[in-house]
Amino acid sequence: MKTRLTEALGITCPVIQAPMAFAAGGALASAVSSADGLGMIGGAYGDAAWIGQQFDIAADARVGCGLITWKLAERPHLLDQVLARDPAALFLSFGNPAPFAPAIKEAGVPLICQVQTLRDARRALDCSADIIVAQGAEAGGHGDARGTFALVPEIADEIARQNSEALLCAAGGISDGRGLAAALMLGADGVVIGTRFWASNEALVHPRILNRAVAATGDDTIRTRVVDVVRGYDWPSRYNGRVLRNPFIQKWHGAEDALKLEAGVEAAKWAAAQEAGDLDVATAFAGEGIDLISSAAPAGELMADAQRCLAGAAA
Amino acid sequence: MKTRLTEALGITCPVIQAPMAFAAGGALASAVSSADGLGMIGGAYGDAAWIGQQFDIAADARVGCGLITWKLAERPHLLDQVLARDPAALFLSFGNPAPFAPAIKEAGVPLICQVQTLRDARRALDCSADIIVAQGAEAGGHGDARGTFALVPEIADEIARQNSEALLCAAGGISDGRGLAAALMLGADGVVIGTRFWASNEALVHPRILNRAVAATGDDTIRTRVVDVVRGYDWPSRYNGRVLRNPFIQKWHGAEDALKLEAGVEAAKWAAAQEAGDLDVATAFAGEGIDLISSAAPAGELMADAQRCLAGAAA
Repeated sequence: MKTRLTEALGITCPVIQAPMAFAAGGALASAVSSADGLGMIGGAYGDAAWIGQQFDIAADARVGCGLITWKLAERPHLLDQVLARDPAALFLSFGNPAPFAPAIKEAGVPLICQVQTLRDARRALDCSADIIVAQGAEAGGHGDARGTFALVPEIADEIARQNSEALLCAAGGISDGRGLAAALMLGADGVVIGTRFWASNEALVHPRILNRAVAATGDDTIRTRVVDVVRGYDWPSRYNGRVLRNPFIQKWHGAEDALKLEAGVEAAKWAAAQEAGDLDVATAFAGEGIDLISSAAPAGELMADAQRCLAGAAA
Repeated sequence: MKTRLTEALGITCPVIQAPMAFAAGGALASAVSSADGLGMIGGAYGDAAWIGQQFDIAADARVGCGLITWKLAERPHLLDQVLARDPAALFLSFGNPAPFAPAIKEAGVPLICQVQTLRDARRALDCSADIIVAQGAEAGGHGDARGTFALVPEIADEIARQNSEALLCAAGGISDGRGLAAALMLGADGVVIGTRFWASNEALVHPRILNRAVAATGDDTIRTRVVDVVRGYDWPSRYNGRVLRNPFIQKWHGAEDALKLEAGVEAAKWAAAQEAGDLDVATAFAGEGIDLISSAAPAGELMADAQRCLAGAAA
């Protein structure tokens, strides 16, 4: 499968692995890159030592790195450190990319901006982003409220109106070849996939959490601020995170102010549960596409799936 | 374009027009049916006289009728009246279809069940629904929280697991041929389209409200309970409605309890604004796909669009 995205990134499958915080280390990123897609280290909140280790683990594999933009603004020096590792792409999400775009462009590194609204997309185009990722609310982990289905063609039309050369990827709810084929129909050049790669042996996820997630359906997920409150992360109010419901989430969702008052105790409890894989408390950051996943599979299989869908449509 | 849906319904374009409350009368339904799709009268809350008038307006056109299921439960006699008009299909949304399914099936009328979760879909399959509509949160008007993109393949897989003959339509965020082509890739047999037909001369919408909506983007929409509170409609709590933001919505969204206390005054104000097309108060029930709509177009054009998308993918 050849799209403008595969040509721009020198890959053979139009699939970028989402740079998922904590879960996407060097092992996952290099596995995706060696399976025809583009792997990404989840640089997330910007732990410099951890990011360095993960690049070392990825070794010679051509992988990119993602950072949370509003967090990068608190520690801007991190950008130089990541650029020094010559990443295959720099993936910025959740915040204003303008302060960082010039250095990334100057380094000759493809700039990927993940956006959640048409307004965000316009800002990313103003920054000369090379790739816009239109992320819908179906996605696991952090995001905003708009759905994937209308956001992708809306941004495709905006790119066309601006005569921009920017490429477009769809993200949120894409877990198999059907989703990849549908995204291409909506005007995307490729896709960003998180949950399907999160549910893999290479991801840094407790096996018990992973097993629970794979047995769940999209109905079992919810967007919430509970996990950010318990971790003490000060996310801008428009963003929340999609996770699997469990007793801990059910207890505190809608009661975030009360949770703040007990943050010390609850944070310790949550961290211990995460470590132990205690499913009543620990968090699985999964998207609505979780139902379509019964086991992890390499990126190449996704492409084969998508090609079957497209060939079927043509016939 | 031939799909299992076109064959089952005897239409030539796999597009069903959503039975939008108040907006979808006999004129719109017959226009869509004569443009290759299946038109639907929006029977909604069950005003028997109005529904009868709209069937009269549709005259000889083959049109269906939609009803709000939880409202039908309050006036079940309405079902016989609608079935007596020999509708092309009966479209039930928002509630348990089980009490009504047997009479519909016995009348030989295709039963369409619109669902918002996998759980809903299982219930509809238990009722032997002929067509399941997987409606995502992108949709205009009433709905629930799940997005279109993952819900469609998830329900397609459930239908396959059950060895059911039920057909599947996607709804929510579909406004052009790209959306139709994408829905087919996700495993749907066709689509249900609301907003694009709402934005048409045949729909019963104030022209000024319509003009404002067509100029808006998906970012300008929001899911809210404000309009139900001001109208005194007692919707089950899981459902809310997607509308265009305006000063009235901005004022009361999140302050629904306060609105209830002033419901008398505000209801009169809202009704007058609706009549006059006062854009600061009146409600446009629009989906996130509104950005893709610059003017209304017949169903046949959608099909031509979709065929171009699919042919492009094949090449």
